[in-house]
Amino acid sequence: MLTLLTDFGTRDVYVGVMKGAIAQINPKLTVVDLTHEVPPQDVAVARFCLMDAYLYFPIGTVHLAVVDPGVGSTRRAIAVEFARGYLVGPDNGIFSGVLSENPALAAVELTNPKYWRTPQPSSTFHGRDIFAPVAAYLSSGVSLKQLGVSIDVTSLVQLEIAECTTTETGIVGNVQYIDRFGNLVTNIPGCDVLGKSWSVEVAGVTIPYCGTYSDVKIGEAIALIGSHGWVEVAVNNGSARSQLQMELGDRVVIYFE
Amino acid sequence: MLTLLTDFGTRDVYVGVMKGAIAQINPKLTVVDLTHEVPPQDVAVARFCLMDAYLYFPIGTVHLAVVDPGVGSTRRAIAVEFARGYLVGPDNGIFSGVLSENPALAAVELTNPKYWRTPQPSSTFHGRDIFAPVAAYLSSGVSLKQLGVSIDVTSLVQLEIAECTTTETGIVGNVQYIDRFGNLVTNIPGCDVLGKSWSVEVAGVTIPYCGTYSDVKIGEAIALIGSHGWVEVAVNNGSARSQLQMELGDRVVIYFE
Amino acid sequence: MLTLLTDFGTRDVYVGVMKGAIAQINPKLTVVDLTHEVPPQDVAVARFCLMDAYLYFPIGTVHLAVVDPGVGSTRRAIAVEFARGYLVGPDNGIFSGVLSENPALAAVELTNPKYWRTPQPSSTFHGRDIFAPVAAYLSSGVSLKQLGVSIDVTSLVQLEIAECTTTETGIVGNVQYIDRFGNLVTNIPGCDVLGKSWSVEVAGVTIPYCGTYSDVKIGEAIALIGSHGWVEVAVNNGSARSQLQMELGDRVVIYFE
Repeated sequence: MLTLLTDFGTRDVYVGVMKGAIAQINPKLTVVDLTHEVPPQDVAVARFCLMDAYLYFPIGTVHLAVVDPGVGSTRRAIAVEFARGYLVGPDNGIFSGVLSENPALAAVELTNPKYWRTPQPSSTFHGRDIFAPVAAYLSSGVSLKQLGVSIDVTSLVQLEIAECTTTETGIVGNVQYIDRFGNLVTNIPGCDVLGKSWSVEVAGVTIPYCGTYSDVKIGEAIALIGSHGWVEVAVNNGSARSQLQMELGDRVVIYFE
Repeated sequence: MLTLLTDFGTRDVYVGVMKGAIAQINPKLTVVDLTHEVPPQDVAVARFCLMDAYLYFPIGTVHLAVVDPGVGSTRRAIAVEFARGYLVGPDNGIFSGVLSENPALAAVELTNPKYWRTPQPSSTFHGRDIFAPVAAYLSSGVSLKQLGVSIDVTSLVQLEIAECTTTETGIVGNVQYIDRFGNLVTNIPGCDVLGKSWSVEVAGVTIPYCGTYSDVKIGEAIALIGSHGWVEVAVNNGSARSQLQMELGDRVVIYFE
Repeated sequence: MLTLLTDFGTRDVYVGVMKGAIAQINPKLTVVDLTHEVPPQDVAVARFCLMDAYLYFPIGTVHLAVVDPGVGSTRRAIAVEFARGYLVGPDNGIFSGVLSENPALAAVELTNPKYWRTPQPSSTFHGRDIFAPVAAYLSSGVSLKQLGVSIDVTSLVQLEIAECTTTETGIVGNVQYIDRFGNLVTNIPGCDVLGKSWSVEVAGVTIPYCGTYSDVKIGEAIALIGSHGWVEVAVNNGSARSQLQMELGDRVVIYFE
């Protein structure tokens, strides 16, 4: 099984072409789209999405992620082995979220053109010419070592992400992701508030903790531990983003009672 | 085979994560997306889409539908057996369109945590933690009865939908769905006009019946029996929605000649 | 293997219904979406997308393409055999790009209702009632000849596409496609500039040739041979479309040095 995450969108044929390149190698692979709507070149959003999804796939799954503003430059193309499977894509920090939870066991730079679609890959579409074929071979039994030269797992690029900080009265964090519904996913782990009495302040408004959306009236804001495992601010049947005028990176403060 | 219909959109990884949860149980299932672009929490649109699609799938298909504004509340999570397969989702009326055409044979409330992803499901993402695993088990041979306690099929929630009414001169109905092309799908069954001479009045304009789009000039409005089986108003190579300034629920009148 | 390309979008269930109609015939087929976001009724964009994608699929793949403003009219429904597989859809020029690179070997008009979903197909949704079933049968071993009457391959509709022209100083072409990133794909073949020194003028601006996006600073425009094989104008980490205010069909001039 193989998952795909890109910023290619779905109006062009780029994603379909990658699936074709995969099928030319192994037509029997099951390919699942995580999302292709990552904002163009936004490695931080891609990192969050992948970290949010990998845990729900079978052991051995190959995750192919291509948000690659440095395509054609000297950034490395890599494949990484970790306890739950494999990661294939550019070495630009896109995997640093997954690897913060599940350390890399081994990594290679994709230097062996035998597993590319062509020895002269396009300088602008490594997704088609390098990453998709490599992921297909890896899903089909080719070993990590065959794909290129070993690299030190400590050398993999880490994306610098703002972390939340503990204060005397609670936790100060920020919004790390906003979903389609306008739910604000913070960078405060749910386990840091579990079993405590707490509320959240965003945009000057204090919002109580509740178990689920429908614990409050329609249109009211609540704070909860979201399905992602992070503290989340939502509006029952509405959008917290628009109602509270919050954006990515905006400050969120937890108060313990 | 398993179909998915949600309001999750495709920019977040929610749909991908549900497919992962399915693959953890049965990686060989074929999963088909009906749509994930139902407007957030719009159970009526979801009901129409499912009613429009179920007939075109093989007997035995499991249809998993998650438009679930009441997630985490006391609304029931259900699985329903009907002549053509199974329905899995919240008991909020989302299945009432399908069941108006194909009565339920049996139904259960999904109370058996053995078939959930975890005995402590997220209060906000039953799609991942309850519905997807249950649908995967059902597609893999687990029987309906094992999934939970039997419930009376007459107790399933019905969505109240405006019905068309017959008058002395014709039929009065309304727009129940508008597609990407701006075609206006009414709630008037095609069989009620079949073989008769008729025209439609919408927005003060009288529109003649024709067989297909190209029976009129480009930019002209026509009425026809659409592929959905309902009376439909369209514009050849254009959008009836914008040209006639019509929206969901707007009145449509059929005149027989 | 079967690919799908339509202008149906993904908010309605039309694409899902086509996949259901395919699964009713052969549930084991792998179906890959090329794109469903072709602008409504835009056969020229569909032609480009299909021409851009077909080469990356296994030999024998059936490409099903439905952008069909003439549905229900006298335009022919066809299936075409070519060296790399099969094409199924309306005879409106949608395949003329593929066939300009890979000549048709044989073609039929889809006149045999045995391979339709129903002998009375909807006049507005041949995708569901004719094309999807025919493509599924073709992918399952039914021969081209069984699908209908043979037609002369020279009679297939050609879409008139503006071609680039060679001048004393270079090449004059135009923008034939713009992707999600705002990259401008011209109608000038990359092989016409390969190995030469050249620059491009668009919108009064001269843009140098470079190998890849990251050869210039962020926000700067470059010209390159894109992954599509055509001369392309891009902006590193930005949109050439919006930065250069270019649209489909706008003029592009190559100067050789």
